[in-house]
Amino acid sequence: MKEMENLSSKQVFLSDTELFYTEKVNEKSAEISGEEANHLINVMRYKVGDLVNLTDGKGKIYKAKLIKIQKNTAWAEVVEFVEYQKTNENIRVFVPNLKSKDRMRFLIEKLVEIGILNITIFDSKRSIAKGGNNEKWEKITIAAIKQSLRAFLPNVYFEKSLAKIDFSNQIVLIFDQNAETYLSEIMFENDKNYSLIFGPEGGLDESEMNLHNSTKIKLSNYRLRSETAIIFAVSKIINL
Amino acid sequence: MKEMENLSSKQVFLSDTELFYTEKVNEKSAEISGEEANHLINVMRYKVGDLVNLTDGKGKIYKAKLIKIQKNTAWAEVVEFVEYQKTNENIRVFVPNLKSKDRMRFLIEKLVEIGILNITIFDSKRSIAKGGNNEKWEKITIAAIKQSLRAFLPNVYFEKSLAKIDFSNQIVLIFDQNAETYLSEIMFENDKNYSLIFGPEGGLDESEMNLHNSTKIKLSNYRLRSETAIIFAVSKIINL
Repeated sequence: MKEMENLSSKQVFLSDTELFYTEKVNEKSAEISGEEANHLINVMRYKVGDLVNLTDGKGKIYKAKLIKIQKNTAWAEVVEFVEYQKTNENIRVFVPNLKSKDRMRFLIEKLVEIGILNITIFDSKRSIAKGGNNEKWEKITIAAIKQSLRAFLPNVYFEKSLAKIDFSNQIVLIFDQNAETYLSEIMFENDKNYSLIFGPEGGLDESEMNLHNSTKIKLSNYRLRSETAIIFAVSKIINL
Repeated sequence: MKEMENLSSKQVFLSDTELFYTEKVNEKSAEISGEEANHLINVMRYKVGDLVNLTDGKGKIYKAKLIKIQKNTAWAEVVEFVEYQKTNENIRVFVPNLKSKDRMRFLIEKLVEIGILNITIFDSKRSIAKGGNNEKWEKITIAAIKQSLRAFLPNVYFEKSLAKIDFSNQIVLIFDQNAETYLSEIMFENDKNYSLIFGPEGGLDESEMNLHNSTKIKLSNYRLRSETAIIFAVSKIINL
């Protein structure tokens, strides 16, 4: 039987801790199916009686004991669980569709690891790649919360255009090389909502830049790739 | 002839600016050869009379006029140049060899874009991948300064072991999940030298952690991948 870590003290962050994701878990019991079950049963070779860490992506991490394993599904009894506080909920990051799928994957992974809960990928006027791939992005997102042992599954949305997004009650910050306000001049407050908008390789076009009530932010005197600018800015803002 | 940007005002950071790297440039003339020449001549199709942006990686960016092009070499007359100040020279980043080559490439690229000038890649006791690939890393580094329009080519060293490195006159910060000092508690001062040491997937081992006079730093309550932790920490520290 795998050794049980002391979940309650939040010392779950060992380098070899495995976290599995399932929607089918409550305070008493859990069912793991699909790819997660395959990984649990066939790759990691968990057996009946083993303890497993689960998250529902809704704020809880469960410790559960496997009671039954069939071909592609495992069932478990919950032993204990910890409920986490949502953080950084007031930060939304708007990511332009990037040409390179590798860079896109890497970017989403990093944003989730760093703790961004709201990511909107949009087709920018100058985006070369167009269209959403929600299924693929969700896979990356689930893998990243498992990696970083996070209890909340971020929302990754796709929008065809920035113009379709409702920015009411948001402080909108648009990152732009030609801006004169530096990020360090912005005081982030927990009780306000921030939408951070970044451009693609060729930059945002004028109509995208002219969203009402936005503040243009200069991040650097250097020319950063989109994903670098995004990860850099978010790292500056987020406290882990 | 390509339009000449006003280099002196430092408004060179247009999204379509091309910067070429050559060691053979002085205040009067330049020679571009090898891959850079191939890109200039055959891919970008520059012609005699065109203006080209060059850097020597030693702090200058030159504007030069092409005067002669042969098969795989181009010669140019320097029209003007701008000398840049070195920044962040007091920060050294120690990167453990990572298993994934993609993650390694991405990490080096991001560190260079963000402006780190001293990168030491080392075989950590628990590194799965071992050994250096200086030629490949230099390629990544050159590509990243061209991308970010930087005038300094960072030093990327390889060391077989942390134990071989001289940390005298350095404030050594070791990033460790179990540390109790947070990064935000460290006040970075420009006139002090900092060595930031990060562990590989499995963490640093005890002998690596016990470097004399090091401060252990906790970055996050979450489990970050090595490259995420490094990019995140460096983004917090560096001002662009």
